[in-house]
Amino acid sequence: MTATPDALVFDAFGTLFDVHSVTRLAESLFPGRGGALSQAWRTKQLEYTWLRSLMGRYDDFRRVTADALDWSLESLRLDASREQRTALERAYRELEAFPEVRGALERLARGRTLAILSNGHPEMLDAVVDHNDLRAWFGERVLSVHDAGVFKPDPRTYALAAAGLERPVAAIGFVSSNGWDAAGAKSFGYAAWWVNRGGAPVERLGSPPDAVVADLAELATRLG
Amino acid sequence: MTATPDALVFDAFGTLFDVHSVTRLAESLFPGRGGALSQAWRTKQLEYTWLRSLMGRYDDFRRVTADALDWSLESLRLDASREQRTALERAYRELEAFPEVRGALERLARGRTLAILSNGHPEMLDAVVDHNDLRAWFGERVLSVHDAGVFKPDPRTYALAAAGLERPVAAIGFVSSNGWDAAGAKSFGYAAWWVNRGGAPVERLGSPPDAVVADLAELATRLG
Repeated sequence: MTATPDALVFDAFGTLFDVHSVTRLAESLFPGRGGALSQAWRTKQLEYTWLRSLMGRYDDFRRVTADALDWSLESLRLDASREQRTALERAYRELEAFPEVRGALERLARGRTLAILSNGHPEMLDAVVDHNDLRAWFGERVLSVHDAGVFKPDPRTYALAAAGLERPVAAIGFVSSNGWDAAGAKSFGYAAWWVNRGGAPVERLGSPPDAVVADLAELATRLG
Repeated sequence: MTATPDALVFDAFGTLFDVHSVTRLAESLFPGRGGALSQAWRTKQLEYTWLRSLMGRYDDFRRVTADALDWSLESLRLDASREQRTALERAYRELEAFPEVRGALERLARGRTLAILSNGHPEMLDAVVDHNDLRAWFGERVLSVHDAGVFKPDPRTYALAAAGLERPVAAIGFVSSNGWDAAGAKSFGYAAWWVNRGGAPVERLGSPPDAVVADLAELATRLG
């Protein structure tokens, strides 16, 4: 990357918010199976975003998330009541931010514009941002791929950030803990930081990130 | 579905050919880890086809397969020599057909045209068809998405079958053991049979298959 960008755009699920914070609820509903359900749900949720995008059959992230839960429950042979399903889906609106997020955003916001660009439906995103009391850092700059009618990593989704922030592509840095999302943003033209929370290998997709950090606190330190 | 189609188009990997037949080789190279390597490799291979397609960064299936192997080896902390990698990649050209395939194709070919439509590169497909001595059933009708420059389930890939067979969409039945591939074919307009070899739940993608069979022998019986 050339210069430090004056705007940082964050992925939401997995990057700011811990998608596996639903594990606790899942475990209380299905003892001994919470981790497996949470993993299957997240994996299938991503698969469905990619597959629906490729098929040209976009549906909003709330529906995709519910469909993925439905598949995962059947796959694990878990019998869930309507109330249990509703509780699990609602948990996605109340995901917990990772512990370092607030402190890191406070440091990163100095002299920079911060935004979110997520697969989430706008209503879902607003709920989870407000639940974690992060509105001060993002204001109305909580952007959803819903406006493009396709999910990441389609280039039309990344274009929403430059358009929404009214900035050139070169002025924007993209931050994601999803390696494939960082690759998509880099391929589109943004500087990309990969938050490698799990110590995973870098994705072999032809557009490696400009830098890799362990969490957002390290990103804040590196960007100063 | 309305009438019995007079042409059947088969997916290759997972449907005719067992992608986990590489497990034996993987197990001999990395004792105790062969199954995990085979699973990770296949999962990542599919992910990369979807992600590259969405990013508009198509690369051929040989390269995607090698990249997915590379990621999987690193993820499992397996140290593979160049010779071992080459042997694993070559194994994809020598996948074994499922045991019922030959007998089922013989029955299904009576009065019908059979074809293959696969993500595989043409060279890879020709190799695995000839390795299993299945050329008699398919002739030159071994179609690759390589000609569309994008992977399944993009609708442009499914269009190759109707074009290649010079038949209307309504005259074609598509057969896949990959639930998402059957959904993609159905969404495009083909009658779709899902070969549910693993007893998995049906994919929630808005276009369920017309029928589900356990293997190709059952398909042959059902179609008479």
